Amino acid sequence: MILDKVSIPEDLKQLSIKEMEKLASEMREIIIKKVNATGGHMGPNLGMVETSIALHYVFNSPVDKIVFDVSHQCYPHKIITGRKEGFLSPDKYYKYTGYTAPEECEHDLFKVGHTSTSVSLAAGVAKARDLKGEKGNVIAIIGDGSLTGGEALEGLNNAACLNSNMIIVVNDNGMSIAENHGGIYDNLKLLKETDGKAECNFFKAVGFDYLFVKEGNNIEKLIEAFNKVKDSKKPVIVHICTLKGAGLKAAEENKEKFHWMLPHTLDNDKIERVMGECYESLTCDYILKKAKEDKTFITVNAATPGVFGFTKDFRDALGEQYCDVGIAEEHAVAFSSALAKQGAKPVLAIMSSFVQRTYDQLSQDLCLNNSPLTILVYWGGISGADATHLCVFDIPLISNIPNIVYLAPTHKEEYFAMLEWSVNQNQYPVAIRVPSNGLISTGKEDKTDYNILNKYEIVEKGEKVAILGLGTMYPLACEVKKELSLKCGINASLINPKFITGQDEKLLNELKKDHQLVITLEDGVLDGGFGEKISRFYGASEMKVLNYGAKKEFTDRVPVEELYERYHLTKELILSDIVNKHLI
Amino acid sequence: MILDKVSIPEDLKQLSIKEMEKLASEMREIIIKKVNATGGHMGPNLGMVETSIALHYVFNSPVDKIVFDVSHQCYPHKIITGRKEGFLSPDKYYKYTGYTAPEECEHDLFKVGHTSTSVSLAAGVAKARDLKGEKGNVIAIIGDGSLTGGEALEGLNNAACLNSNMIIVVNDNGMSIAENHGGIYDNLKLLKETDGKAECNFFKAVGFDYLFVKEGNNIEKLIEAFNKVKDSKKPVIVHICTLKGAGLKAAEENKEKFHWMLPHTLDNDKIERVMGECYESLTCDYILKKAKEDKTFITVNAATPGVFGFTKDFRDALGEQYCDVGIAEEHAVAFSSALAKQGAKPVLAIMSSFVQRTYDQLSQDLCLNNSPLTILVYWGGISGADATHLCVFDIPLISNIPNIVYLAPTHKEEYFAMLEWSVNQNQYPVAIRVPSNGLISTGKEDKTDYNILNKYEIVEKGEKVAILGLGTMYPLACEVKKELSLKCGINASLINPKFITGQDEKLLNELKKDHQLVITLEDGVLDGGFGEKISRFYGASEMKVLNYGAKKEFTDRVPVEELYERYHLTKELILSDIVNKHLI
Repeated sequence: MILDKVSIPEDLKQLSIKEMEKLASEMREIIIKKVNATGGHMGPNLGMVETSIALHYVFNSPVDKIVFDVSHQCYPHKIITGRKEGFLSPDKYYKYTGYTAPEECEHDLFKVGHTSTSVSLAAGVAKARDLKGEKGNVIAIIGDGSLTGGEALEGLNNAACLNSNMIIVVNDNGMSIAENHGGIYDNLKLLKETDGKAECNFFKAVGFDYLFVKEGNNIEKLIEAFNKVKDSKKPVIVHICTLKGAGLKAAEENKEKFHWMLPHTLDNDKIERVMGECYESLTCDYILKKAKEDKTFITVNAATPGVFGFTKDFRDALGEQYCDVGIAEEHAVAFSSALAKQGAKPVLAIMSSFVQRTYDQLSQDLCLNNSPLTILVYWGGISGADATHLCVFDIPLISNIPNIVYLAPTHKEEYFAMLEWSVNQNQYPVAIRVPSNGLISTGKEDKTDYNILNKYEIVEKGEKVAILGLGTMYPLACEVKKELSLKCGINASLINPKFITGQDEKLLNELKKDHQLVITLEDGVLDGGFGEKISRFYGASEMKVLNYGAKKEFTDRVPVEELYERYHLTKELILSDIVNKHLI
Repeated sequence: MILDKVSIPEDLKQLSIKEMEKLASEMREIIIKKVNATGGHMGPNLGMVETSIALHYVFNSPVDKIVFDVSHQCYPHKIITGRKEGFLSPDKYYKYTGYTAPEECEHDLFKVGHTSTSVSLAAGVAKARDLKGEKGNVIAIIGDGSLTGGEALEGLNNAACLNSNMIIVVNDNGMSIAENHGGIYDNLKLLKETDGKAECNFFKAVGFDYLFVKEGNNIEKLIEAFNKVKDSKKPVIVHICTLKGAGLKAAEENKEKFHWMLPHTLDNDKIERVMGECYESLTCDYILKKAKEDKTFITVNAATPGVFGFTKDFRDALGEQYCDVGIAEEHAVAFSSALAKQGAKPVLAIMSSFVQRTYDQLSQDLCLNNSPLTILVYWGGISGADATHLCVFDIPLISNIPNIVYLAPTHKEEYFAMLEWSVNQNQYPVAIRVPSNGLISTGKEDKTDYNILNKYEIVEKGEKVAILGLGTMYPLACEVKKELSLKCGINASLINPKFITGQDEKLLNELKKDHQLVITLEDGVLDGGFGEKISRFYGASEMKVLNYGAKKEFTDRVPVEELYERYHLTKELILSDIVNKHLI
């Protein structure tokens, strides 16, 4: 195996083209095996094997600095920068993250996981180099799908003016996670059809020198191209055409499915994953029904349809009533706000982690205009995710903006009652935190009138202690209630707050009569969240309050059970807190 | 006067070109007079007089829908859509806002004030029209300066794919608030030099049809162009070249100064505004000194240098150590984070209202990477500003992100001690809320060791009541202390928290010994802010807490004194709260 001889970039430089080609296929093999075992990004990495080899052959990392975008295509880079064991040895499969991580290796510059950041970050790296009077190449990698994100476009506009070396490799595989969306893709297509020779060239129009590489999976051609731009004194775009999933037939043929995959998808290639009944599937059913009834009902998302179960069939069925804006969360919010303001019925689906990209649009374009948009926030909650994809910050982010109503359903019937209310009302921007803790059904219709804002539900009226279990923390609230009854003989009140964005002052005041302790449970960071507002409400009263939720920290692949322990989000730890603090 | 005959767009349609030209000069005259009296946006409005007339002549608002960007160029539009009294009668000068406002008029579609939103909003308007099966033109106005904002670029990419009518008027006056920055401006320049004929065309590359209008202040030419694109079945760009400040010599000659002006600038045209000693001027002095000592010290901002007192001289003196990235707040944060991470010494200046545009970059590009960037947040605090430019949300926005240290200085010496600490440390991203309540000097050097995070300062140790006066609310804390002493004979403790992002648990615990009430005062929205965390901290204890700050609401030009009353931010109201609630 050539791979035996290659551990660090220096080792590559001794190889012939032929040997590097053999190395590429060896790398491909271990990536496929590893990703199939652990799950992860398959297509993006297979497409970038040759580019990674050629980059490290031509450039001299870490003196030359490579900045990845999203960095879900960094597996080949990891293999040739000292971390091949993470792909060779099953017992090391989980040693390294799936993203660039400076704490792992000097060849990784930034911790990244959200898209469209590489050009801006690399521009900063290049400018720092110039200010320090240093030399070296700065290389940003960015996929065609990531190009449409506002941060990438802002970055390109500014990077073009950098009066010194900066190389931007546009990895054009003709795909985002799903298909691409937007006007610039016609131009990219034109450039590919004309071997990069078309006069009207997006990159040149933004101010870059430009080099086109038709065979982006050909090591020799890539080396030739990178040698041409190496030590360039001006910002230059190298537009390479790669094949997403290259070398794995299933991935080449089904690019969306193999963008990111669950473990053992390959072993079960014949078995199509079928979505069982879940919030995603039921929401799709709901949307299809609504869209049929109302031609102005439209579903919007920003490049992650798979997250919501928006399959190809679903998208096709909706036709003009479905809109994927590509990686463009800011646009998604402003566009949807205008749709709502003008009397259409938009539903915007977005992941908790990516709603972060659009605070100002939520505030200014949406809430200030009070557009009756419905936003479905998916995956909100404490999890064992990578630090780059945590979903615990959406409550502080959304709920402290005026006008918006942010709802936290606890079960299926409640979720659909809220959704139905939201799409039928015309007064408020509404966000609903789609439960991420599995489908729970009460079997009973939720007849709540959600026009009465901020009315909490007392599920069981008790005394002494009241437990407010917000959204996905409601089941824990039930457990705590049971535990209090069992261990302390206390019949606690069980409350489902439903509304994240407002306090039920009447109910909270009434609790003062026969309760001495209020416990709040939320599935997100405590700082700026739901519970603190309850603490503020009771600040001047005799009521004691305990807030439970996540600590303000970036956790990185910490098992969720460990986090629950850390945050005392278990019935046992909550009970012992209450007892230790002499609160009952 | 022609203006006597024109109140609504319909009236325009009876006029000849000559009459419209006369109308333009009459409108110009009243705009100049009004803006000189009240302050406001001069240059942008003078440049758009002819365009506004031509648009309303050709199109049929509000059936045809015009969406403005920033909307600081909407005065001419307001004059011809029923609101001329706001420019003719000094007693009505304050009747209408300086931005589009749907509550004023059916010809205004959205409440906007931040840049780069019009294309996305208009795309939503157009899509809603199509879903509803309606007809009509949708016109977005956007300035060349606003083009570089991520939201605008995301919007353009998506608007280009809209398979129906949408007209985007690019108002190219060759300026942002200050000069433009970025690669696309070379392309705009090329287009102007070639009468729009250059093959390499940014707008075409993004997928638009394109029409060039050289004389953007010529009503006849504009009408001709708008008639050409009217009822277009495809998205089209109309690139018009206008003169910022047209018709007012001083404004034409000094475009930056007359972008937005204070009242009576024209009357005092000979008297150059000289910045007295203030946080802005002293910070500039500090930056110049630092930049001289350290060649890697660099100052970054996003298109609003005037806000920070970054004059032309200042910018020139810094040379390569100054970087205005244009309207591109997301890029500004990512770029600065990378600069810091690579060992340069960046300081990023940003307005509280605009820091909202970059939450995810603060979280992912900056804080997750722990880059030792210094951010100066200007203008934070409760004010009588327009709803679009409130500066009360930066504390919840910034302070609930992990890793960052957000500091609230109360006086000059403290501010510079914090700044000096921040630029010399390498451990944390740091933001400093530059005081917006005038320069207060103690005359004594601040010797605090800021490496010890979250250590509050007990300025005066008292008993019973402790008052935490955060940043610009510190003077009120002093007043409340005095009032408590005078009226109740209580010697309250006075505390300067300094740190917004963390609690001094030791100090807060010690207060429990001889205090029964803690009062927090903050100059921003309470929800998700500083005080609620103190309430959470004391939730399970006997300590009573009262949090004071702004309500979660969009206020619109409400006098600050009225807001202080509303939020009980006066010594009298706070004292009466304490007494009424029997807290002492």
